[in-house]
Amino acid sequence: MQDIQQFIRDIPDFPKPGIVFKDITPLLINGKAFHRAIDLMAEHYQGKKIDQVVCVEARGFILGAPLAYKLGAGIVPVRKPGKLPHETIQTTYELEYGTDTLEIHKDSIPAGGRVLVADDVLATGGTAEGVLKLVEQLRGEIVGVAFLIELGFLKGRDKLKGQDVFSLIKY
Amino acid sequence: MQDIQQFIRDIPDFPKPGIVFKDITPLLINGKAFHRAIDLMAEHYQGKKIDQVVCVEARGFILGAPLAYKLGAGIVPVRKPGKLPHETIQTTYELEYGTDTLEIHKDSIPAGGRVLVADDVLATGGTAEGVLKLVEQLRGEIVGVAFLIELGFLKGRDKLKGQDVFSLIKY
Repeated sequence: MQDIQQFIRDIPDFPKPGIVFKDITPLLINGKAFHRAIDLMAEHYQGKKIDQVVCVEARGFILGAPLAYKLGAGIVPVRKPGKLPHETIQTTYELEYGTDTLEIHKDSIPAGGRVLVADDVLATGGTAEGVLKLVEQLRGEIVGVAFLIELGFLKGRDKLKGQDVFSLIKY
Repeated sequence: MQDIQQFIRDIPDFPKPGIVFKDITPLLINGKAFHRAIDLMAEHYQGKKIDQVVCVEARGFILGAPLAYKLGAGIVPVRKPGKLPHETIQTTYELEYGTDTLEIHKDSIPAGGRVLVADDVLATGGTAEGVLKLVEQLRGEIVGVAFLIELGFLKGRDKLKGQDVFSLIKY
């Protein structure tokens, strides 16, 4: 993954002092690197009959949508409250400081639909855990959880026990 | 386009009373319809040597990212202020009530880079006009502006004069 990893840069003190942010935009803006990253992530799910990729706004859309396209799957957007126009269900989950709430359309996943959850970064795992709860409420079958980057030292995997968790690049 | 259009539903009074919102999520969640919509949009740009697709958070990412993937191009995210971690330039544009500001990374488009601007809906054209300004400031070469849906009665095209404007579905 060295060929992909060289396009990810560290931004110190973003979004706040003491945090080193992994900026994936140098990878995204490069056609070849972006294409290869999506292909490598999709490879892991070939033959797994994914019906839908579920992903969270906004950066999750950038990886989830082409992954869905490549897999011949649909894309189910998970958004902040008030953004989705039809009937939704919600989940509230804990952040380092405070809480956050996410919504999904009630009619977005058919019961038994085979779902891949995708996001750009696995950090503490709070967001992914929230998304899994939403998919479970709609009775989707979770085939796996995919990330471009995993920040292993934050132990997000511990929150996703029992799931097939895949990440392309680990720190 | 009847086969695509049937997956777009009207939501009355969203986001506010009197507005009929075109909800594309029934199209997005359907693997076949989503794949076909992206292919039809990409067809228009085959052979046009697109280096990068520029798109605006959040719904713009859902169409722009798979379009970039299909065209072998990179994706350049345009975001609300404070979201992009590296050095940016900004533009402020007028909405029906008030203004909005968008940012792009300074180092995201090389001078002369061949750029396609993509979004889900062309309404009044204010957002697209703002994005074009950002691309022009970085001296990118604008090859075209693509939308899934065009709300013709809002005359957004008038703001994009001189550009090759393409939309898959017109209302």
